[in-house]
Amino acid sequence: MQVTKFAIPEIIFGSNSLEYVVPCAIRNGAKKVLLISDPGIEKAGWVDNLLEFFESGKLNWVYYNSVDSNPRNYQIEEGANFYLQQRADLIVALGGGSPMDTAKGIALVASNGGKIDDYEGANQIQYPLPPMIFIPTTAGSGADISQFAIITNVERQVKMAIISRTLIPNISIIDPLFLQTKPKWLVIASAIDALAHAIEAYVSVLATPFTEIQSLKAIELIVNNLEEAIHSSTLHNLTNLCIASTAAGMAFSNASLGVDHAIAHSLGGKYDVMHGLMHPVLLPAVMRFNFPASRKKMAQIGEIVTKDKGHTEEETAFQGIRTLESFFKSLEIPLNLRNLIPDRSKLQEASQLATQDACILTNPRHVTWEDCLNICEEVW
Amino acid sequence: MQVTKFAIPEIIFGSNSLEYVVPCAIRNGAKKVLLISDPGIEKAGWVDNLLEFFESGKLNWVYYNSVDSNPRNYQIEEGANFYLQQRADLIVALGGGSPMDTAKGIALVASNGGKIDDYEGANQIQYPLPPMIFIPTTAGSGADISQFAIITNVERQVKMAIISRTLIPNISIIDPLFLQTKPKWLVIASAIDALAHAIEAYVSVLATPFTEIQSLKAIELIVNNLEEAIHSSTLHNLTNLCIASTAAGMAFSNASLGVDHAIAHSLGGKYDVMHGLMHPVLLPAVMRFNFPASRKKMAQIGEIVTKDKGHTEEETAFQGIRTLESFFKSLEIPLNLRNLIPDRSKLQEASQLATQDACILTNPRHVTWEDCLNICEEVW
Repeated sequence: MQVTKFAIPEIIFGSNSLEYVVPCAIRNGAKKVLLISDPGIEKAGWVDNLLEFFESGKLNWVYYNSVDSNPRNYQIEEGANFYLQQRADLIVALGGGSPMDTAKGIALVASNGGKIDDYEGANQIQYPLPPMIFIPTTAGSGADISQFAIITNVERQVKMAIISRTLIPNISIIDPLFLQTKPKWLVIASAIDALAHAIEAYVSVLATPFTEIQSLKAIELIVNNLEEAIHSSTLHNLTNLCIASTAAGMAFSNASLGVDHAIAHSLGGKYDVMHGLMHPVLLPAVMRFNFPASRKKMAQIGEIVTKDKGHTEEETAFQGIRTLESFFKSLEIPLNLRNLIPDRSKLQEASQLATQDACILTNPRHVTWEDCLNICEEVW
Repeated sequence: MQVTKFAIPEIIFGSNSLEYVVPCAIRNGAKKVLLISDPGIEKAGWVDNLLEFFESGKLNWVYYNSVDSNPRNYQIEEGANFYLQQRADLIVALGGGSPMDTAKGIALVASNGGKIDDYEGANQIQYPLPPMIFIPTTAGSGADISQFAIITNVERQVKMAIISRTLIPNISIIDPLFLQTKPKWLVIASAIDALAHAIEAYVSVLATPFTEIQSLKAIELIVNNLEEAIHSSTLHNLTNLCIASTAAGMAFSNASLGVDHAIAHSLGGKYDVMHGLMHPVLLPAVMRFNFPASRKKMAQIGEIVTKDKGHTEEETAFQGIRTLESFFKSLEIPLNLRNLIPDRSKLQEASQLATQDACILTNPRHVTWEDCLNICEEVW
């Protein structure tokens, strides 16, 4: 076993844990908070709710909501200027992966200068970031746990992966009550993003015992709770999805991902597709592609998914993949790439770009751009 | 599920990870390090080894080695004065639980003033501590992961439990190569301390899914690796013991412990017994005592220990306890209290003290001092 690193934020988890935000901000030295959220969260009333906590805790705040579902580089630079002009000293993000990734980008550019593009790739950050407290309202992105930020460069039409331990927030406050107000499709897309995190991290070349137990726990919880969670929205099932997302975040943040996410980033950069919808399409094909390089682990995943064991690793693994496909089908979500992106013309270009994504480095099987193209064509 | 917290340090794990100490210290702002270790570690050459890293990294340092196997309150106060006089700004601890707990105490008193006794119990610490980097040389105490420090008050003859999130070091550097130079009895005592952490945390009233997976992983790894680790000292098995100790640390730090540790602390405070040797004696009796309050979880432990399942939860759980007893017997370590402490005269007093230990609050079954005495008498 080579030297390996495992880092996660402090986690505060449970219904009504939102209440902890002010004491958490104060013990991280906050005098003036920059709150980052988006218009969707505002509409749901959660921004007002949070601001009431700030007000009653006598905490100064300013607010930034120029956040897209795939955050853009210019929004980061605008936000960083706003943070500096306002002399804020702590960042709170409230929302899904987009406000949280926006917050990471703003914290980074505000403290390290330059443009967000300067930090693309792994370990390019030199100076410490301002303290960050993240409050995820979906259970999937893992942005509240991870050292990843994904920002779209609109000029180059690519999603840049920025990876650094300093992008882990100080505290993640995870309150399952948010999920009760979310539409079903968002709960599904987020949960399957988390499932992809768990599976890709489990077979990653950087997986360790510390990440593997998180991956397996996440897979088990998503498979056993997602259906019930979307049909009856019970807090018990939704809480389990939040635990799964958190566990998957611990896994992929420390073991990284693979070719599914590399393709999802490159297609997502070109077509502005909602990230979580890419995985039900790509993941089964990627699992089949990766099987020869991680037979035993794919069989372990198959065993959890099917609660059964075949005669061979291959049988168990492929039965697992087929079960996942049926599961995705039952969720009534797009299962082919043609339903998500408008035309096939840029598949080759996107496949070539995917091989430059940082996530591809940890895929268990070596991947060429032709392999990426084959995967895209298979699921077209 | 109530609101729950999960916090661990950043972990750097693997053979030769010791090399990371200087970059870790520098990125935590170190100008002058206080190194804390003990004469045993010095003799093994590890202190010199570490100081060479400091020297070649041009890092100023001072050294404190007044550390006992059960750290004393006066040693903490001496060390805190030394830290302040020397104007050190970061603490590195190298060794087992004792130098690490000493380091926590010194960091606490140096930054928060007063005496170490002022902070006994949970959440009594007001101000931030200086950065701490811990390098455990045994696999068991979990002091490098946990928010606990155990310090003996020599006047009152008690082991004080001091519990606070701020006692978690910034970074834990876990290098399994240290274990290859350790005597067998120390590997055993440390591993069984970790086993007790894992089991007590698993059945704790504060256990969560985040701590439970760590407990189960630790139990599995200790049961499957300890014998081979002590017979052939293979790096593979020793590495697995380090993973187990780390996982158990994550579990107990966040879920706390139970009556086994409460009694071990109270008897240890009176008689200066090596902490790790208390658990093979106490743990089976405590597990029997706790069974009615956590039948299912005790059965799950039994299943991992025996790799088999009985017809009932009771059968599986008790078969597990008997298997652990045989396992401890095979390790040729003391199995009765009379072999560890000189006389029975203070059992009642120690039992009464045990009920005041912070660990007893999270035991799954309510415990009276008479229960503690019964457990001690049972294993006398």
